[in-house]
Amino acid sequence: MTENGVFSRDKVLTIDTMNPTVKNVEYAVRGPIVQRAMQIEKELREGVKKPFTEVIKANIGDAHAMGQQPITFFRQVLALCSYPELLNENMFPEDAKNRARRILQACGGGSVGAYSASQGIDCVRQDVARYIERRDGGVPCDPDNVYLTTGASDGIVTMLKLLVCGEGASRTGVMISIPQYPLYSAALAELGAVQVNYYLNEEKCWSMDLSELERSLAEARKHCNPKALCIINPGNPTGQVQSRQCIEDVIRFAAKERLFLMADEVYQDNVYAEGCQFHSFKKVLFELGPEYSDNVELASFHSTSKCYMGECGFRGGYMEVINMDPEVQAQLSKLVSVRLCPPVPGQALMDLVVNSPQPGEPSHTTFMKERTATLSLLAEKAKLTEQILNTVPGITCNPVQGAMYSFPNISLPEKSIKEAKALGQAPDMFYCMKLLEETGICLVPGSGFGQKDGTYHFRMTILPPTDKLKILLAKVKEFHQKFTQQYS
Amino acid sequence: MTENGVFSRDKVLTIDTMNPTVKNVEYAVRGPIVQRAMQIEKELREGVKKPFTEVIKANIGDAHAMGQQPITFFRQVLALCSYPELLNENMFPEDAKNRARRILQACGGGSVGAYSASQGIDCVRQDVARYIERRDGGVPCDPDNVYLTTGASDGIVTMLKLLVCGEGASRTGVMISIPQYPLYSAALAELGAVQVNYYLNEEKCWSMDLSELERSLAEARKHCNPKALCIINPGNPTGQVQSRQCIEDVIRFAAKERLFLMADEVYQDNVYAEGCQFHSFKKVLFELGPEYSDNVELASFHSTSKCYMGECGFRGGYMEVINMDPEVQAQLSKLVSVRLCPPVPGQALMDLVVNSPQPGEPSHTTFMKERTATLSLLAEKAKLTEQILNTVPGITCNPVQGAMYSFPNISLPEKSIKEAKALGQAPDMFYCMKLLEETGICLVPGSGFGQKDGTYHFRMTILPPTDKLKILLAKVKEFHQKFTQQYS
Repeated sequence: MTENGVFSRDKVLTIDTMNPTVKNVEYAVRGPIVQRAMQIEKELREGVKKPFTEVIKANIGDAHAMGQQPITFFRQVLALCSYPELLNENMFPEDAKNRARRILQACGGGSVGAYSASQGIDCVRQDVARYIERRDGGVPCDPDNVYLTTGASDGIVTMLKLLVCGEGASRTGVMISIPQYPLYSAALAELGAVQVNYYLNEEKCWSMDLSELERSLAEARKHCNPKALCIINPGNPTGQVQSRQCIEDVIRFAAKERLFLMADEVYQDNVYAEGCQFHSFKKVLFELGPEYSDNVELASFHSTSKCYMGECGFRGGYMEVINMDPEVQAQLSKLVSVRLCPPVPGQALMDLVVNSPQPGEPSHTTFMKERTATLSLLAEKAKLTEQILNTVPGITCNPVQGAMYSFPNISLPEKSIKEAKALGQAPDMFYCMKLLEETGICLVPGSGFGQKDGTYHFRMTILPPTDKLKILLAKVKEFHQKFTQQYS
Repeated sequence: MTENGVFSRDKVLTIDTMNPTVKNVEYAVRGPIVQRAMQIEKELREGVKKPFTEVIKANIGDAHAMGQQPITFFRQVLALCSYPELLNENMFPEDAKNRARRILQACGGGSVGAYSASQGIDCVRQDVARYIERRDGGVPCDPDNVYLTTGASDGIVTMLKLLVCGEGASRTGVMISIPQYPLYSAALAELGAVQVNYYLNEEKCWSMDLSELERSLAEARKHCNPKALCIINPGNPTGQVQSRQCIEDVIRFAAKERLFLMADEVYQDNVYAEGCQFHSFKKVLFELGPEYSDNVELASFHSTSKCYMGECGFRGGYMEVINMDPEVQAQLSKLVSVRLCPPVPGQALMDLVVNSPQPGEPSHTTFMKERTATLSLLAEKAKLTEQILNTVPGITCNPVQGAMYSFPNISLPEKSIKEAKALGQAPDMFYCMKLLEETGICLVPGSGFGQKDGTYHFRMTILPPTDKLKILLAKVKEFHQKFTQQYS
């Protein structure tokens, strides 16, 4: 003790005294490999000699960072909402001004700087509801069931938060696909829920097998209380698009086994492969008839961050809840009120996505041209990625039917696996780290998403501009061959 | 069981099977009284006859909703960032364009639609650090200790999340002032932490008493493990500004008792009373010398939502952590990466707040004029509110030294208390509900913030335009007299 009565002391908050569930959280998409990539970028700026001149980041679905241009109409309306003085200028088309006026009228004091209702701005939720109805061929949508969110992640975490309870063998289990998007595992770890894995079938283009769902559930019931089933369609990190039949099977399974369904549908416009089509879980649920549509509980999620928009920075999104117990829904409404409201510019952007320029409006032609160009380019790059990766001996790649990712299977020589394990690294982390150091290409190892034991993968986005994507794929090819040789 | 094998079933997720900690969450600022106010607004629109023609909302610190105008410079830069084509127009001042260019250069692909680093955009964190250094008379600030957040709420919840652990008598306790801002109680309920109350001294203008802190801590140690002490300065809902001496006492207390300090300083520019001045906890900590500044762990929070900006809808904010254990800080950085990044427009706005127009720049004069006008008007309204409320027999009101709220003490007749209790309502909820129904004025009852047993209060913002504020205060006066008469 010092003279002033203050203990010369250890920290109050240490790695041993902190929340243990936070320690269990892992998030590979922004994990050690990305941190190293940022260091390397800094080293390059400082003039450190490397065998490459730039880091190519294909680790995260961040379209604008990879050069995709925003939709002009969206940004015009956002500028008008930010600085309504611009409504007096002649430089903006009338439909952009009308959208901005409508959004501003719905804001407190006519300002996007006011808090909105916690569930989101009324007129935006109404527009979302109409969008869902159009998308789903007229299946009704009640705006009261729509919650605007801070990106889709916020909605997913909020729903999981409502679901989790119990201790020991009655602890809530949540079924997630493996490979998965690590937001799910991170949220479940933080909430102390049980992660229940079901494996996607890599041989059948990452489809969902009913028998695997049954195995997974039966296994889980021995040690926890599985209450929810999460699906990502189109798939992240696996890029598959589920067939209507598969969705139907999953809904029947959820109904039979009493599971709350969570459908992550943020890539709903990202469908590239011929013969593939996006089917929303909600639409299929209603097509199965009232026995299902009146009973099965479903939350579905969408976002401004993906599709042709790629507006990740605005953190816009929504969720729709169906057949939720009214008492629980009241709790949900209360829970979201604590964080006051989702960012209003993101809500405005979500509105524009669900209420885009219509035929006859001045911005329609440009909007459609920009939208189509972006989606066509993504479709091309999906094809290119699959084709080139499949020319590499030791790399096998399913078609990128949708979303923004390829998740190829990589054969790793025994010797490299041993060396990785000696370093305490997952073998595909060892591989990706070496790839980064030698080529400047930043991918995420499959181990960050989960995979069948003894298989190895990486996730890469198809987002880099075509010329860079070609360089990237050529470098991966060369590296893989060299790596295989080196460790054989 | 139906013919198709589907149980006609209860919900999976019900009030009985949902997360019990969520059920314990309460958030009065958007609670039942606000829901009723929204219903009444709807009824008025539908032509229902009421003894008033509009609802006046003084329930939430939402300046723009109450007619406060945004700072022109901020909105110009935000419009430029949203739609960079505007950089080619002559209508914006050069300093606005320069700020926008600087922010855009720091964004991936030059777009605010790209994800930022999870901790926030580098150059914004650097600007925040320089702002803190200026504010605190040169006390150094490391940008690596600055985390941009989704409003201050996000930062506060994140810090609490790191702190909470243990079960039973070793469960983490967190000391919060009573009255408090109910984000704290809500977050603690959700995390299952123990809320440890210390009472502010209403007789001494809601100041903090060392003896009360000691009493509260000693009491808490009997049944939990108190690890943190939260302070809101200037105060919400109580509007006091802490003296430098008081802050020093609190820091010495935290050092002696080994408590992690959390300083909620979102109202740092909202100081109105003569002789009052804002002192940041960080500055005082460093003035106490290295024995304190090298040891005491502190997180402080700021936001774009309050002060002269009032930009709540953008959800911008930051926190600075001081003396945080490096291993814990690595966990913090990992934890924030799961939610990807705070909204980028909010980050841009935070940048403008900490890097506002300087003397000599073209926007400086207008900026200063707007800023001063807003703060002067708030100071006037603070005075007006205190003066008028204190003319009402049965209402006693401390000076609104800072922040945006008055939290007057109201004497309620015994008969009204009995009637409220018979209805299962807190007596001040009964009072505020009646006030709303009869006058259209929406306030929040003191019971939503906590208060000494047997005392009753309400919180009202000083934000309505002066003419409406006068009407509001006159109506409250009239109502209080009528209410007192009716129940005497």
